[in-house]
Amino acid sequence: MSAPFVWQERIRYVDTDASGRIHFTAMLRYFETAEQEFLRHRGLSYQELESKDLGYPRVHVDCDYTSALAFDDLVSITVDVARVGRSSFTLAFTATCGGLEAAKGSIVVVCMDRKTQKSHELPKALAHALNAP
Amino acid sequence: MSAPFVWQERIRYVDTDASGRIHFTAMLRYFETAEQEFLRHRGLSYQELESKDLGYPRVHVDCDYTSALAFDDLVSITVDVARVGRSSFTLAFTATCGGLEAAKGSIVVVCMDRKTQKSHELPKALAHALNAP
Amino acid sequence: MSAPFVWQERIRYVDTDASGRIHFTAMLRYFETAEQEFLRHRGLSYQELESKDLGYPRVHVDCDYTSALAFDDLVSITVDVARVGRSSFTLAFTATCGGLEAAKGSIVVVCMDRKTQKSHELPKALAHALNAP
Amino acid sequence: MSAPFVWQERIRYVDTDASGRIHFTAMLRYFETAEQEFLRHRGLSYQELESKDLGYPRVHVDCDYTSALAFDDLVSITVDVARVGRSSFTLAFTATCGGLEAAKGSIVVVCMDRKTQKSHELPKALAHALNAP
Repeated sequence: MSAPFVWQERIRYVDTDASGRIHFTAMLRYFETAEQEFLRHRGLSYQELESKDLGYPRVHVDCDYTSALAFDDLVSITVDVARVGRSSFTLAFTATCGGLEAAKGSIVVVCMDRKTQKSHELPKALAHALNAP
Repeated sequence: MSAPFVWQERIRYVDTDASGRIHFTAMLRYFETAEQEFLRHRGLSYQELESKDLGYPRVHVDCDYTSALAFDDLVSITVDVARVGRSSFTLAFTATCGGLEAAKGSIVVVCMDRKTQKSHELPKALAHALNAP
Repeated sequence: MSAPFVWQERIRYVDTDASGRIHFTAMLRYFETAEQEFLRHRGLSYQELESKDLGYPRVHVDCDYTSALAFDDLVSITVDVARVGRSSFTLAFTATCGGLEAAKGSIVVVCMDRKTQKSHELPKALAHALNAP
Repeated sequence: MSAPFVWQERIRYVDTDASGRIHFTAMLRYFETAEQEFLRHRGLSYQELESKDLGYPRVHVDCDYTSALAFDDLVSITVDVARVGRSSFTLAFTATCGGLEAAKGSIVVVCMDRKTQKSHELPKALAHALNAP
């Protein structure tokens, strides 16, 4: 649907655990950072999108871990738009390190009306940015 | 396969984000804690299971978030054994708060030989504990 | 000033790092949890204290680490009120494991008027709870 | 003692809490990242320094928070070497955002012999890098 965006992160000490490798939840924090930078790259920021009226909770996350990452590894995270719906969208993430795939996952984000706690149509600027070729 | 185990956690301030709700990755940390306590309840601990030879990386995680949680909410996490394979197993988690489902997910754990970095048969004590009725 | 309150936490896998020990920031999260439970024990909760008008930012933290903690260790955190001022208070924390001191620190919390971003007199219920013998 | 090194970080959503601002522990994670990049800038990395024999636990941390930071703020963290001892060293950190000081703190790192769990003379390469003008 659109050209992939790549964000680079370095594995920090706090992201490792006693196994000597990255903790599995750290990868999902990297995905979130990549999402934030992806939107910035497309001219948007959640800081603008979030308002008193609208929020963007995650309603689904999944991730497959295919190889281990260690402290100080430089990870490249590719972000792609997998789906844009009326009030939600799905981003697909692939993390690689040294050309080797380390993780692959997706996150579904819903636009929510804070007052009613119901889903709400994506703001036009967001839908437009997500659909950009 | 087996009677569910329930673990209770309280949402801590550090687990919330600027949306005023729990951050989506915090739920996965709670799942991991519930897993640890579930194994303890079955007479095992990763402290014993982990050795110089074997590790237990997570190779898959997924979670659906169905209602929001806020600071200080008391969450009940039900752990169930969904599958026990030769060298891996799947745990299913359901988080509820005040009787309302908040999240539902699963985690696949593989037993890995640290030296070869290949999957390894589950230790008998672990397979036995997971298969307990 | 007052009898100490003790809160117990177990070191979780996510709180460890590649050194095989607890990450130094995890101890401060435990302190925060102990603070929350200490206030609950004294009949208060931040959920009640926090309002549209008042917030409780931390303006100072310090901690000395005296012995290492590992995964699954059970830590006892003693909370004591070190100082109660007009608009701020200091809590002192001591973490022990198996009778051995592991860390000792303090946190200064200020009551802040969210609108003016200036310090604000502690609510009477909070000052009263902190000063309780 | 040496020219300051500056590292920039952007406040991520996971680093915020329900107050709408950065959680106080996140600043200490940024300090640690700045330390890692500071050492890299001086030609060293903990990945090299850490060995089966030596570790680098933190034995003291302190931080004063002087102004609040919000989601997506760009923070500049200045790292300076405050002290180099025989087996330990102190780094001083100052975080600013838009020219305004946000936090100021220090961390004391000890070089430890993993086997004896006692302090150990700093490796020459590390002492040299820390003392560089």
